[in-house]
Amino acid sequence: MREKADSDLVRRQNRLLLLEALRQHGPLARVELGRHTGLSPASITSISSQLIGDGILQEMGEQQVQADAPQRRGRPLTQIDINPKSAHVVAVKVSIDGIELALADGRGTILARRMSRTSTYDSDPKAFGQRVAEEITALLAKSRTQARRVARIGIAVQGVADSQTGTVVWSPAFRTRNIGVSAAVEAQLGIPCTLANDANMIAEGLISTDRARYGSSAAVVFLGYGVGMGLILNGQVYHGPTGAAAEFGHMNHLPGGPLCRCGRRGCVEAYVADYSLLRWASGEAATQPPSFNAIPEATMLALEAAAHRGDETASGAYAKAGEALGFGLARLIAILTPSHIVLTGPGTRAMGLIEPAMRRALEEGVVDELRRNVEIEVVPIDTDMIIKGTIDRALRHVDREIFAHGTFARRGRELEKTA
Amino acid sequence: MREKADSDLVRRQNRLLLLEALRQHGPLARVELGRHTGLSPASITSISSQLIGDGILQEMGEQQVQADAPQRRGRPLTQIDINPKSAHVVAVKVSIDGIELALADGRGTILARRMSRTSTYDSDPKAFGQRVAEEITALLAKSRTQARRVARIGIAVQGVADSQTGTVVWSPAFRTRNIGVSAAVEAQLGIPCTLANDANMIAEGLISTDRARYGSSAAVVFLGYGVGMGLILNGQVYHGPTGAAAEFGHMNHLPGGPLCRCGRRGCVEAYVADYSLLRWASGEAATQPPSFNAIPEATMLALEAAAHRGDETASGAYAKAGEALGFGLARLIAILTPSHIVLTGPGTRAMGLIEPAMRRALEEGVVDELRRNVEIEVVPIDTDMIIKGTIDRALRHVDREIFAHGTFARRGRELEKTA
Repeated sequence: MREKADSDLVRRQNRLLLLEALRQHGPLARVELGRHTGLSPASITSISSQLIGDGILQEMGEQQVQADAPQRRGRPLTQIDINPKSAHVVAVKVSIDGIELALADGRGTILARRMSRTSTYDSDPKAFGQRVAEEITALLAKSRTQARRVARIGIAVQGVADSQTGTVVWSPAFRTRNIGVSAAVEAQLGIPCTLANDANMIAEGLISTDRARYGSSAAVVFLGYGVGMGLILNGQVYHGPTGAAAEFGHMNHLPGGPLCRCGRRGCVEAYVADYSLLRWASGEAATQPPSFNAIPEATMLALEAAAHRGDETASGAYAKAGEALGFGLARLIAILTPSHIVLTGPGTRAMGLIEPAMRRALEEGVVDELRRNVEIEVVPIDTDMIIKGTIDRALRHVDREIFAHGTFARRGRELEKTA
Repeated sequence: MREKADSDLVRRQNRLLLLEALRQHGPLARVELGRHTGLSPASITSISSQLIGDGILQEMGEQQVQADAPQRRGRPLTQIDINPKSAHVVAVKVSIDGIELALADGRGTILARRMSRTSTYDSDPKAFGQRVAEEITALLAKSRTQARRVARIGIAVQGVADSQTGTVVWSPAFRTRNIGVSAAVEAQLGIPCTLANDANMIAEGLISTDRARYGSSAAVVFLGYGVGMGLILNGQVYHGPTGAAAEFGHMNHLPGGPLCRCGRRGCVEAYVADYSLLRWASGEAATQPPSFNAIPEATMLALEAAAHRGDETASGAYAKAGEALGFGLARLIAILTPSHIVLTGPGTRAMGLIEPAMRRALEEGVVDELRRNVEIEVVPIDTDMIIKGTIDRALRHVDREIFAHGTFARRGRELEKTA
């Protein structure tokens, strides 16, 4: 970068601004692009022509301007959008009971899906990257897409993911630790591959969905087979120095508490996750080891029904979970005071059972002056949000590549040729 | 911003880049400025001439280039630096036993100081802003500086500070809550005023001191009369949506624990602060209310000496503090995994007594895979770091004003006239 003249840097920055505005708002007319980016009409015209020439953007059908826009009565406005053929990305979601895949175009529209039910827990760690590569190959074959048309692969896993090395450091989905994934996938397919924590990918999806609401600072907490968190700080998903941050589920609630799947005692997850609720209800939380098996939805529905019927061991389990969750959120608020905390995941189905103890713990756990600025809400987010967020992040990486290399012309034209 | 052409925006961005480079590295030759900012020689020349003309920058004496720089053998390089007269700022540190003030020039060099020993705790909350304004007026009178030469005032307080409204929401230095300060100071002196938490100001100071080490993500934890924290995330001090974030001292350690000065039970501070150590040593932690009095250093030194002599109630108090601190840091690591945690403040004098229990708690409290990436270090930071950080932040605000308004010419020329 040192040798480049700053005019080039500025041109690339402006290109990125334009792509970001289109990712966020969808198709826009040139005047609207000017409004969203702060760029001059001349710059918008020059950058968009260039990107259209490179096959990154395309002009859409004409749109009649509303009659109440006085200056441009009836003049048709051509909208510009990202060319869906500009880049393809693959999102992979690895969880304890399977590998889920999706192929998306340059606008993030999903073109094909694949689901492979398999127990990852006992899979061979050395062969896992290879296994993921094979699944991707099968997805691409199914949708008749050439591997070289895929610009990036994003993989989301439960647990601690080191994005820098592409390694699953620790995950409840695997028996062994430190499983290298990205390098094997890249070697096999020749496509850049990024690994990240699945709850962080929900946060990516939230930013894309409602930047005005969640774009400043928010925490999304996933309740279900595990407890995950994604953090949005100063407008970006926070990954921390190694990409392994935001492990809310493995934040200690009580020293010496029940054993967690991570090997420590008293983590929030050891009170709140599905396996923990079942363990509390069994009355043997203090001695029973954590379960690593996938838990059928019916089992959790039965526990909820028992609690609603007034079964005290069942409702006691939800009260324990609510208390741990409430103190956990209180600690999070003391440190970060996010403007929004979004509770999501299948575990929120039982919110009515969890909430009274959670609210009490929140009140006890942190001074009102900090708590009153935080909005806590339950948002039913489809687990598909993980796939969607992984796609969004992969596309943002693709945009950054355009920024870093100054041009996307080669890839763009190449893709057009092979289209 | 919408109406402005982007060339103006770019020019202002480049000015800010240049100022940031000089703040970080001190005086630089034009070629070095190019290397640090990525700007072209033509841009550097044009921006620096402009800023020199405006009185924001100035040329320094000539510097002989080392003989081993081949291309420019022996050619003298003129260095550029920030003009110390470009702006003055005032830093105010409010603590339980007094108000400390410093006047600094545009390079952050302290020109004058003032210390007013006073018990803030029982001061009239309505008149406090007025009181601070009077102290600033006295400081300026002492140094024969006109108020209109001061570009910004920064105030650092213990406790929860709402930067948006300039209000001390809650502080152990005051009996009452929600004390408006900034507005009163601004009304009295006509100078923009920013209020912030004191530990956040230590973090500002750390970034200026060693950006390479602490500039990515770090937490600084202050131990002493209270427990404070400043967070550096993605290269910036994190203030949260209201400016009240990073209240590590008021993060819950144990539900139902001893009463904290904030009114909740079991906060980290209620185990670790000076008053808490004394309360543990008294054997009445469960029933004794927290003390709001300033504690003489001699009292803490006596407690340390007793613990070193083997007094079990005394050493037990430090073990309690170490455990709470260790679990607190473990929880922080689970959420943010900062690359560095800096322990500082007078409380670190007793680190030898605290550390064994702290290390045990850290190991119990968070999985090794997250902990191993965090370096925990004890750095003896002068409490003057709060003043220094407040000055640095005020000057960064001044730079941002130059950025926002596109020019500083008016103020610059005005200052030169009055100099």
